Amino acid sequence: MGRWEPNARGRLEQAALELYGERGYEQTTVAEIAKRAGLTERTFFRHFADKREVLFGGQGALREVFVHAVAEAPDSAAPIDAIAAALEAAGALFQERHEHSQRRQAIIAANAELLERELIKLASLAEAIADALRLRGITDPAASLAAEAGIAVFRVAFARWIGETGRPDLSRVIRESMDELKAVTAGASRVDTR
Amino acid sequence: MGRWEPNARGRLEQAALELYGERGYEQTTVAEIAKRAGLTERTFFRHFADKREVLFGGQGALREVFVHAVAEAPDSAAPIDAIAAALEAAGALFQERHEHSQRRQAIIAANAELLERELIKLASLAEAIADALRLRGITDPAASLAAEAGIAVFRVAFARWIGETGRPDLSRVIRESMDELKAVTAGASRVDTR
Repeated sequence: MGRWEPNARGRLEQAALELYGERGYEQTTVAEIAKRAGLTERTFFRHFADKREVLFGGQGALREVFVHAVAEAPDSAAPIDAIAAALEAAGALFQERHEHSQRRQAIIAANAELLERELIKLASLAEAIADALRLRGITDPAASLAAEAGIAVFRVAFARWIGETGRPDLSRVIRESMDELKAVTAGASRVDTR
Repeated sequence: MGRWEPNARGRLEQAALELYGERGYEQTTVAEIAKRAGLTERTFFRHFADKREVLFGGQGALREVFVHAVAEAPDSAAPIDAIAAALEAAGALFQERHEHSQRRQAIIAANAELLERELIKLASLAEAIADALRLRGITDPAASLAAEAGIAVFRVAFARWIGETGRPDLSRVIRESMDELKAVTAGASRVDTR
């Protein structure tokens, strides 16, 4: 990337979200996104394979943060604690992007193809986390169950956080959701809600 | 359905699974499925919207069994116990279809479109279970977390069961997986595996 295109990637993401929100995802073209960002289509395709991937470009970083946090947890950490550490690390990625995340989620929820893509990405994230747990010597099915449970907590917490106004703390919502999962699986008949 | 087409639906499912296994899902046409089943294309379309839906025709029944079991659990049952009862009821649906389930899963795993469809169906199943829990007075996020955790247990147990030979007992695998989820979320550092 040349220096004449500062933060091209971020500008393209921002322009795409605006246009998807204004006109709908289906109706927006790559040419329009590039124009809104003040960049060329060629620059767009240097950063993203297609207009769908603009919405999923952060998934690689998310996976890396998750897997790294699981791998780096102390040897003595139980699988669920390694997962909790990974969820908090992932939460930090989004903390400054509350409004962005709200807009992105609204666009995805409105389109079946995008929703399927999101689910595939989350399933592959769960697989990556399970692999990271296996590298710690956790056998199946514990590794798969811990990873799936972690993704469930992440999804539920993320949806709650998206629904809150102001500048809610995603780490707090994740911790609360993890505590509630623990209470639920321990057989609590009613769980404290805030 | 006329009486000259006994078990047309089952015959079409069987024929489709055979052909998808032999030729691949992409390469198989509705005409071929109908022919293999000894039925007409018109009969096919009386039972299924398209060749993809042959693989997902059981999802309505699965959802009904899940939701009914959650609704019928005793008032005193904790959410996780209502979920466990629903998982066992769902398991009974598949018990006699081990080989069928193995073949179906192999076909789905080989095709990204089918895999996305499967994930969407599972996500909507989790939503239906969460709704059934809310009708029992369980508030969110406990309802969502219990439902997501239940689907995670179901997926992991189903995959283990598919991988076993002989006539493994799906209910047993589900119970074991639920116990392992409980152990994992309780912070067990190693979980007994069998």
